[in-house]
Amino acid sequence: MTEIWFTERQEEHSGLTVRVRDVLFSGKSKYQEIQILDTYSLGKVLVLDNTYQTTERDEAYYHEALAHIPLFTHPNPRHVLVVGGGDGGTVREVLKHKSVESVDLVEIDEVVVRECKKHMPTLSKGFSDERVSVIFEDGAKYVKETNKKYDVVIVDSPDPVGPAVVLFEKEFYENIKGILNDGGLMVEQTESPLFSKDFVINIRKTFSEVFPIVRQYLTVVYTYPGATWSFTMGSLKHDPLKVDEEELNKRFKGMETKIYYPGIHKAFFALPRYIKEEG
Amino acid sequence: MTEIWFTERQEEHSGLTVRVRDVLFSGKSKYQEIQILDTYSLGKVLVLDNTYQTTERDEAYYHEALAHIPLFTHPNPRHVLVVGGGDGGTVREVLKHKSVESVDLVEIDEVVVRECKKHMPTLSKGFSDERVSVIFEDGAKYVKETNKKYDVVIVDSPDPVGPAVVLFEKEFYENIKGILNDGGLMVEQTESPLFSKDFVINIRKTFSEVFPIVRQYLTVVYTYPGATWSFTMGSLKHDPLKVDEEELNKRFKGMETKIYYPGIHKAFFALPRYIKEEG
Repeated sequence: MTEIWFTERQEEHSGLTVRVRDVLFSGKSKYQEIQILDTYSLGKVLVLDNTYQTTERDEAYYHEALAHIPLFTHPNPRHVLVVGGGDGGTVREVLKHKSVESVDLVEIDEVVVRECKKHMPTLSKGFSDERVSVIFEDGAKYVKETNKKYDVVIVDSPDPVGPAVVLFEKEFYENIKGILNDGGLMVEQTESPLFSKDFVINIRKTFSEVFPIVRQYLTVVYTYPGATWSFTMGSLKHDPLKVDEEELNKRFKGMETKIYYPGIHKAFFALPRYIKEEG
Repeated sequence: MTEIWFTERQEEHSGLTVRVRDVLFSGKSKYQEIQILDTYSLGKVLVLDNTYQTTERDEAYYHEALAHIPLFTHPNPRHVLVVGGGDGGTVREVLKHKSVESVDLVEIDEVVVRECKKHMPTLSKGFSDERVSVIFEDGAKYVKETNKKYDVVIVDSPDPVGPAVVLFEKEFYENIKGILNDGGLMVEQTESPLFSKDFVINIRKTFSEVFPIVRQYLTVVYTYPGATWSFTMGSLKHDPLKVDEEELNKRFKGMETKIYYPGIHKAFFALPRYIKEEG
């Protein structure tokens, strides 16, 4: 039987390879190459520019960390902005919070949303919720120009290369700060400390030039380069290390998750020594 | 230029692939196939039966978790047994504890130790320490027959397949319990919850039939299947969740590590919901 394999070169000289059962979509949008693969061991996989973007097998580790840590840090998140994240996984998690009244998703690439709606419903099912608005626009432009205000901004960005570099610059964070309500906060995925140690340390410094409270936390994503994966939070007022676990448990009651629960909220912030002590 | 790549099929239909600069050793012992590869992105890599055993790039995450969690849980570890671990990484970490007077390494395969001594000195350097004795014997047989007693037993085992299955059975743990000093404890690597959820839950039950205190904790190893990796501790008296951080900081002072420090000791035990609540 013919064996078709997809391999991402995670670095120049290493890669993760997976056997493909079916290519559900393959195309090129204005912005990137897009594939949705049905694989034998990772479930359905979204590939952007030859890079694992999300897989059904391990996406909960990423999306739950990206959404629940900021939302449970904010005492009453009502209006949430998601920049990027066209697969819908982050929105799906945000919608689990009853306090949330509106979720705006700003995604540059309409084709990603269209095809994920079609082929990856376990991630994209949240798009049909009436609280969700999808805006097809450049995220950096949106946060600069919008008049709306948010309690939580989540940046579900691609890797910091090419046009995405602006999503990791001080000006972008200043613009986000400008659209936060009182007590608002933001979080962004910020790469692997194992493979991009200097980047992780430097982004912490950039956040510190903008936000009074800056914290980094980790999750593990098998299909991402290095597997250990960082997020950086910038907050105007609320410190994720000072949440009240009992209060969180009240809000968490009845919520369906695979990874997150209030008892491990603070443990996410335990950084290995090599990344904690420097910078 | 010719490109040589090594690929471990981590599951039947997925794999991690790395480009090889040089094959430093390739042979077959009485027990297994052994390769030591010099790779472009993972440093030197020990491969046993076509499986990543340890790589210079990410081994600290594994060896520090395996050694320092039990050693810092025990208030005064003097005599330590390591079963397996012929690469020397675990012994290297154990030796960082000043209280340790003797380390016995029981490894079945002399060739692994010989070749790691030759080609992977960053891991095997501890073998020259006068506190270390290397015993070439079957680990299950050793713990059944020895008259020596230990404060801490660390099982740095291969995957639970073939002859290694006995290292994950109740009889083996009973025999280890029999060679523990008062207040002694053991720890074993117990696979990935992402790829082997049922195994991780079941091994917790097996430990519970033998030890009054059983705890599981996690690290992340990029080159292991699933990347998130579990350890199971069985303890006669000391609970790793009740260590005194200040006391640990006194013992930790001056110790060189990449991952571990007393401030994250307890966070290692934060398990994701899908593995915590079941079983």
